[in-house]
Amino acid sequence: MKKYRIFVTGKQGIFDPAGKTAQNALDNLGYEGIKDLKIGKFIQMNCDDAVSVEAVTEMCEKLLANPIIEDFRIEEVGA
Amino acid sequence: MKKYRIFVTGKQGIFDPAGKTAQNALDNLGYEGIKDLKIGKFIQMNCDDAVSVEAVTEMCEKLLANPIIEDFRIEEVGA
Repeated sequence: MKKYRIFVTGKQGIFDPAGKTAQNALDNLGYEGIKDLKIGKFIQMNCDDAVSVEAVTEMCEKLLANPIIEDFRIEEVGA
Repeated sequence: MKKYRIFVTGKQGIFDPAGKTAQNALDNLGYEGIKDLKIGKFIQMNCDDAVSVEAVTEMCEKLLANPIIEDFRIEEVGA
């Protein structure tokens, strides 16, 4: 069994409404000193040993991330 | 400047519709061997040095995560 962790984040300069909203809400709650807050996706995948990092990259490009506005990073857990 | 990374994931046993949908879609695209796929949130926060990990924990409990159905893990980058 292989485990992958995938981090999907908005590209530099792409507006992140969820992150901005959370940042404003924290500000309204009285938390000071937050300069920037971005919200992306954290994907955990368990799969057969046969699934290569190349295959996972392809899955990200085709389905899990939107390559036009998002970057992704793949980590193999315990590799 | 401090940087935190926060991973928000569904608790064990909580249904994850987004993850299940992505898993089915990958299956339909012909990718085999995926046993489990979960989608959570990946939050990146830049803040002043004065913001402690305790404060970030409080932010997660109050706003960034839903403690009833989600777990979270906080990492200080470069700490």
